[in-house]
Amino acid sequence: MQPIWLSLLSAFCLRLVFLCRAEEGLEFPNFDGKDRVLDISERNYKKALKRYDLLCLFYHEPVPANKGLQKRFQMTELVLELTAQVLENRDIGFGMVDSQKDAKVARKLGLEEVGSLYVFKDDRVIEFDGELSSDTLVEFLLDVLEDPVEMINNAMELRAFERMEEDIRLIGYFKGEDSYYKAFQEASERFQPYIKFFATFDKSVAKHLSLKMNEVNFYEPFMEEPAILPGRPLSEMDIVEFEDDMDGIHIVAFAEEEDPDGYEFLEILKDVARDNTNNPELSIVWIDPDDFPLLTTYWEKTFKLDLFRPQIGVVNVTDADSVWLDMSNDEDLPTAEELEDWIEDVLSGRVNTEDDDESADDQEPDSYATEDSSEGQDPDEEDDSED
Amino acid sequence: MQPIWLSLLSAFCLRLVFLCRAEEGLEFPNFDGKDRVLDISERNYKKALKRYDLLCLFYHEPVPANKGLQKRFQMTELVLELTAQVLENRDIGFGMVDSQKDAKVARKLGLEEVGSLYVFKDDRVIEFDGELSSDTLVEFLLDVLEDPVEMINNAMELRAFERMEEDIRLIGYFKGEDSYYKAFQEASERFQPYIKFFATFDKSVAKHLSLKMNEVNFYEPFMEEPAILPGRPLSEMDIVEFEDDMDGIHIVAFAEEEDPDGYEFLEILKDVARDNTNNPELSIVWIDPDDFPLLTTYWEKTFKLDLFRPQIGVVNVTDADSVWLDMSNDEDLPTAEELEDWIEDVLSGRVNTEDDDESADDQEPDSYATEDSSEGQDPDEEDDSED
Repeated sequence: MQPIWLSLLSAFCLRLVFLCRAEEGLEFPNFDGKDRVLDISERNYKKALKRYDLLCLFYHEPVPANKGLQKRFQMTELVLELTAQVLENRDIGFGMVDSQKDAKVARKLGLEEVGSLYVFKDDRVIEFDGELSSDTLVEFLLDVLEDPVEMINNAMELRAFERMEEDIRLIGYFKGEDSYYKAFQEASERFQPYIKFFATFDKSVAKHLSLKMNEVNFYEPFMEEPAILPGRPLSEMDIVEFEDDMDGIHIVAFAEEEDPDGYEFLEILKDVARDNTNNPELSIVWIDPDDFPLLTTYWEKTFKLDLFRPQIGVVNVTDADSVWLDMSNDEDLPTAEELEDWIEDVLSGRVNTEDDDESADDQEPDSYATEDSSEGQDPDEEDDSED
Repeated sequence: MQPIWLSLLSAFCLRLVFLCRAEEGLEFPNFDGKDRVLDISERNYKKALKRYDLLCLFYHEPVPANKGLQKRFQMTELVLELTAQVLENRDIGFGMVDSQKDAKVARKLGLEEVGSLYVFKDDRVIEFDGELSSDTLVEFLLDVLEDPVEMINNAMELRAFERMEEDIRLIGYFKGEDSYYKAFQEASERFQPYIKFFATFDKSVAKHLSLKMNEVNFYEPFMEEPAILPGRPLSEMDIVEFEDDMDGIHIVAFAEEEDPDGYEFLEILKDVARDNTNNPELSIVWIDPDDFPLLTTYWEKTFKLDLFRPQIGVVNVTDADSVWLDMSNDEDLPTAEELEDWIEDVLSGRVNTEDDDESADDQEPDSYATEDSSEGQDPDEEDDSED
């Protein structure tokens, strides 16, 4: 005898629900093998730009002669094909631009970085910087299709807005679709879909958020009180410049929210962030390894860390060198104060990525190879030869 | 001037953090083009089984002659190759078994369903029923590698256990690794990684959970009070049979937790579930469309629904026929009582998937084609011909 169950579907139990007894009917959206991705050339690029609401172009190196690299290229192509298939009811075009064969088109379109995906929407170009998987790409494109400003018009939407504590958000109060709102909207387009912009024309919503007319509030993740953007009304550039001011040191924290240690560590991090709202030029990026199964194993190799446990460190983005706070004793998560001291050491330069080399010995986790083994010998080779 | 920020990394802002200034160094784990997936045959299957902690075998139809279907096959192969690359430091083997060429091996290994992935761990076979993407597969395999029973030994782990309200969980209190614990462990292996099993040997943890010695509690998602499994000590089969009793009607609810309407609807659903813990044979599966970008667009087509709004319905898994509660008026989410009435209608058969056909006209959303358009003409074909 079972009661009413409400259970959340997870990515690997799908068939438990939909497919266990289904011979035909509800199948997975498999790639159907149909070509949808355009080979962009001088002949068709203008037409493609005009034809679709969004045009997604992958800018790539010439197809390599090497068979292994060809497979890699094929993989990207298939990711785009599956994305195109899944989104074929939306008005989105997909194409490939060869950096050698189509060099002229690439120049005209302003494509610069080989291996990047560019999304053309109206007169804007948005570079996709994410993981090149169909899942991520579909989510990204659906976000780009939406309006860059979301309206908050009633108490229910307001509650939803207040629950988005994980997101960077801006919200403005305007009389209606006037020039000040338009400036806000223009600014929002520059950050879509990376930063969320909201607006209200509703007096009681504005009152609840303590927003004055033409004022814009800025919410950092996990902060209860917003910052008010200086000045009002604000021009497009006022908003853009406030937002672009995000340079400095990146501290990276790995913490699995579902893991006891990870959860505890995250609570400590939130305390640190709340206690230090006036500390300039510092951001902690929290990565939940559960959200990035593919990248996690890669990060473990690159940083030589055990990401089943919480970690915090500084990463030098130019050489991938990094230094991590020693938390090797399982029972001993740092207190908020200890963490603040360590962060101060980072800011003052007392801790930096060059220290890494000396202390590497006692930071290596037991379960991982200490050398970069990605180029090591392949244990399967002997079995694989008959293919 | 920016304060300390704590921000959660999302899948499409990765480069904002790691890569914007990185020429070399922190790149995405691209497929390196190296073959790691074995072509399984009579010659090597025993060796492969012995060699790895886990062996993942994809059981497939013979490679088709049709070029489009070949591409689809290639895609599956590349998903496995990337998974193998990412996990190459773990002790996991990957292979392909051809249902025609390797029919004999398939029979010996007990592979039955073509298109399925089978994971061999010790003397168990686990069928992978999820979305065949590298992300999902990596997560699944890492879960399978772990111990099927997780220990809860202190207050912090207990708090983490209590926060997992979305998961189906069992927890048992045992004296130590005795025969009763072993029976619990054997049962857990049959459900790994789909249902989470926990155990404690700690008196104060057990007391907090009101667990008697050798007793097992069962937590449904979103319920505060657990059910107690009848009898103690319990044999492996007692536990397995309790768990297998999950047959009946599947109600499916789509609700985006981040969306105001979706959140509200979910709260109503939780109320309904809590008020009806004694209703037998009924489960509501909640699907958050945000978790399934690829499948969502597919479900929208299959069910002819707008999944940007909450939906609840009954799905007939054998023919994908479905009937959905009419919530076309935006302002008008049903109350818990209305929802209960509708669920009663479902249970009594007054609402069933055969009613669907009559009322289809007024349930079609505006933005979707009402006919299955996946086989329609391809708008890109004219541009694509030069390839």
